[in-house]
Amino acid sequence: MLYLARMDVTFPESMSPETKADFVAQEKEYSGNLQREGKMVDIWRVVGEYANYSVYDVADHDELHAVLSGFPMYPYMKIKVTPLAKHPNSIK
Amino acid sequence: MLYLARMDVTFPESMSPETKADFVAQEKEYSGNLQREGKMVDIWRVVGEYANYSVYDVADHDELHAVLSGFPMYPYMKIKVTPLAKHPNSIK
Amino acid sequence: MLYLARMDVTFPESMSPETKADFVAQEKEYSGNLQREGKMVDIWRVVGEYANYSVYDVADHDELHAVLSGFPMYPYMKIKVTPLAKHPNSIK
Amino acid sequence: MLYLARMDVTFPESMSPETKADFVAQEKEYSGNLQREGKMVDIWRVVGEYANYSVYDVADHDELHAVLSGFPMYPYMKIKVTPLAKHPNSIK
Amino acid sequence: MLYLARMDVTFPESMSPETKADFVAQEKEYSGNLQREGKMVDIWRVVGEYANYSVYDVADHDELHAVLSGFPMYPYMKIKVTPLAKHPNSIK
Amino acid sequence: MLYLARMDVTFPESMSPETKADFVAQEKEYSGNLQREGKMVDIWRVVGEYANYSVYDVADHDELHAVLSGFPMYPYMKIKVTPLAKHPNSIK
Amino acid sequence: MLYLARMDVTFPESMSPETKADFVAQEKEYSGNLQREGKMVDIWRVVGEYANYSVYDVADHDELHAVLSGFPMYPYMKIKVTPLAKHPNSIK
Amino acid sequence: MLYLARMDVTFPESMSPETKADFVAQEKEYSGNLQREGKMVDIWRVVGEYANYSVYDVADHDELHAVLSGFPMYPYMKIKVTPLAKHPNSIK
Amino acid sequence: MLYLARMDVTFPESMSPETKADFVAQEKEYSGNLQREGKMVDIWRVVGEYANYSVYDVADHDELHAVLSGFPMYPYMKIKVTPLAKHPNSIK
Amino acid sequence: MLYLARMDVTFPESMSPETKADFVAQEKEYSGNLQREGKMVDIWRVVGEYANYSVYDVADHDELHAVLSGFPMYPYMKIKVTPLAKHPNSIK
Repeated sequence: MLYLARMDVTFPESMSPETKADFVAQEKEYSGNLQREGKMVDIWRVVGEYANYSVYDVADHDELHAVLSGFPMYPYMKIKVTPLAKHPNSIK
Repeated sequence: MLYLARMDVTFPESMSPETKADFVAQEKEYSGNLQREGKMVDIWRVVGEYANYSVYDVADHDELHAVLSGFPMYPYMKIKVTPLAKHPNSIK
Repeated sequence: MLYLARMDVTFPESMSPETKADFVAQEKEYSGNLQREGKMVDIWRVVGEYANYSVYDVADHDELHAVLSGFPMYPYMKIKVTPLAKHPNSIK
Repeated sequence: MLYLARMDVTFPESMSPETKADFVAQEKEYSGNLQREGKMVDIWRVVGEYANYSVYDVADHDELHAVLSGFPMYPYMKIKVTPLAKHPNSIK
Repeated sequence: MLYLARMDVTFPESMSPETKADFVAQEKEYSGNLQREGKMVDIWRVVGEYANYSVYDVADHDELHAVLSGFPMYPYMKIKVTPLAKHPNSIK
Repeated sequence: MLYLARMDVTFPESMSPETKADFVAQEKEYSGNLQREGKMVDIWRVVGEYANYSVYDVADHDELHAVLSGFPMYPYMKIKVTPLAKHPNSIK
Repeated sequence: MLYLARMDVTFPESMSPETKADFVAQEKEYSGNLQREGKMVDIWRVVGEYANYSVYDVADHDELHAVLSGFPMYPYMKIKVTPLAKHPNSIK
Repeated sequence: MLYLARMDVTFPESMSPETKADFVAQEKEYSGNLQREGKMVDIWRVVGEYANYSVYDVADHDELHAVLSGFPMYPYMKIKVTPLAKHPNSIK
Repeated sequence: MLYLARMDVTFPESMSPETKADFVAQEKEYSGNLQREGKMVDIWRVVGEYANYSVYDVADHDELHAVLSGFPMYPYMKIKVTPLAKHPNSIK
Repeated sequence: MLYLARMDVTFPESMSPETKADFVAQEKEYSGNLQREGKMVDIWRVVGEYANYSVYDVADHDELHAVLSGFPMYPYMKIKVTPLAKHPNSIK
């Protein structure tokens, strides 16, 4: 099942550059794994914002929540999820 | 270049079922053509709403505006466009 | 899978009381059937509003969209869907 | 009487992981007790968010306020309550 | 149990002055009866708006919904209800 | 003259439980005095929120501002004031 | 007592140019009278909008509501009122 | 003096295609004249919307209001104006 | 040229009462000077809020920005500016 | 391709005046370079706010994101980007 998520990241003011860099590296690895497993289908940067739109293909709501809450930066993210159904005009 | 669009459709109260059905048919054809040309990459139904999220791959803003304003239902749509950049964590 | 929906109904100004009554009757039957099939788990009236919160248990997003867009009053509804995952504190 | 609540939790930046874990454990116990007493009828996780929708069955507004303000995490919650009336289409 | 309601009235453009006057008269009678029965405790005009704040004292949510949906102007009202609990600082 | 106020309280993260308790006690006394003087006519808790709706009967805007800005917790409150006129349907 | 009002005017689509012109003329006269009586202290056009900000000096809320609801265009206006207190930095 | 405006156009449902085309032609001429006079400095289409952002260079607020309210489509536009000051980082 | 501004002040949690008092005194002086120079025409307190509405009469946008950004409390203010044109119904 | 951006800057409470001044200087240089390279076409101050509207002319979304995220103050900015297409009424 497909879901669209928009994620906005806000780091606390007190976080050191080293900690941020560490989160960025962990996030890249986690995100790469999700893509290789086929659970994250797409991820794009929202231009000019520390935010992404990403598309997930998972078994159900519980798996999606596990995937999203597993992001290293999850405590610093605001996430909005939209469930996506097949569109009658899609030729896929 | 990639763009995400969310489109919400509202038909006027006075539109007849026949006119609606005609719009739906035209829209399907237009949308199918855009997909066959590779300009519309994806289109999904927002569950429970007369709305879609769709992704476009076009040359520039002007082409996207031409594509979107060419939708048969365009006068009845509220469209919000988000430009999408490459995300550093994408493995595509 | 569970989903929470909030539905707000707005009838067009021109609709006759008879047509409204007819919609209300159709809606009751449709809604009753969904409950007997186990697809609609709960439905409550939002106090003071022509609106409801309802909970659905369906196979996937596509089934939910079919269920929701099948409501007789669907063209007059504004629906917002929230996917519900299991809560770790639930004892069910 | 039934009420729907949406609760969004935001922990302060300075809270230690130990304190958080302690709050999570207390919350689980409090929440379990409310369910065993029949005061909390349902609780679901909003997918991708540190938030829940929950349904309460209590005697009146004062009991609900006591129940909600008794949550261990109450000082870190933003709660919105919707009173729920019987829906004419409900077959319960 | 106490509830605060805010009601905003919007009449359709096509309604004749006579029909409006008739609604105003019916509303005054209905509202007067609710006050005499003790179900409507207070009603005030929001300055400069076709709107009111009103306070209700009824047995439960179902009675409140019956009271509110019984207003002659109900189809033209947007109503938001807030359940009111006893405040610890109230000396009443 | 009558005014409705909604007050939402947010204490800073760093405030100690003792300071909070002290504010709560001061607030109770201040609020009780306002009621005994007839300046605060009603105060109710918004269920589930650290907020109240309260009604004031004072001579003019300046007195209301003095009353509101005199609350011990004023620096931690977000207040919205609505001036209330007599409603033509009120039988008071 | 002083109040700031913002008024936004929206005429119904079906209103004829003659009716509009008539409303504009009536409004000018009503507004002029209010200014000559000292009840309307100021009125400015919001640049680019069919809207104004205006300041009223009246005895109380009831008089303001009478003044505002007496505007010929009142049924087509959305009005928001802000009560204004003396500012400690004002040298008037 | 410079101002940024965002204009959103909504034509009434009942307007005929001929009337719309006539408005579009008048608008083009009016807009062209404003640019030739140097009063409209820039105008861009918001991609996917019947809306524009435009920049004006006029003597004062009154001239801007005259310019904006002179647009043939003005009755069908929602306009928001932002006054623009010189930015210290601008090298113009 | 006239402008309406709404200013909302929020002091940081860590600011001492002495520093606040100092800002209040500086603000009073700055504001008084602006009024004596005729640049600030009016200033009112929004009842119940640490906010004001004020009216400015300055040469142009740049002077207004200089005036506003010169307020001692400017770093703690959220300001929204509305340019005001002459209203056709004003008799001034 | 053209884009409009609105940028709102919020510095953390703890930032020293020296650090702020340093950011302001770096920003001026970065911004000047972008203008000399023709990538930033315009930048204006929003009157009364620590915010700007600016126009960019870059090759594509990725270049714009690189430009925007390269601003020294980027971590303290909230940026909203609007893609701008050619307007049919533009005579440029």
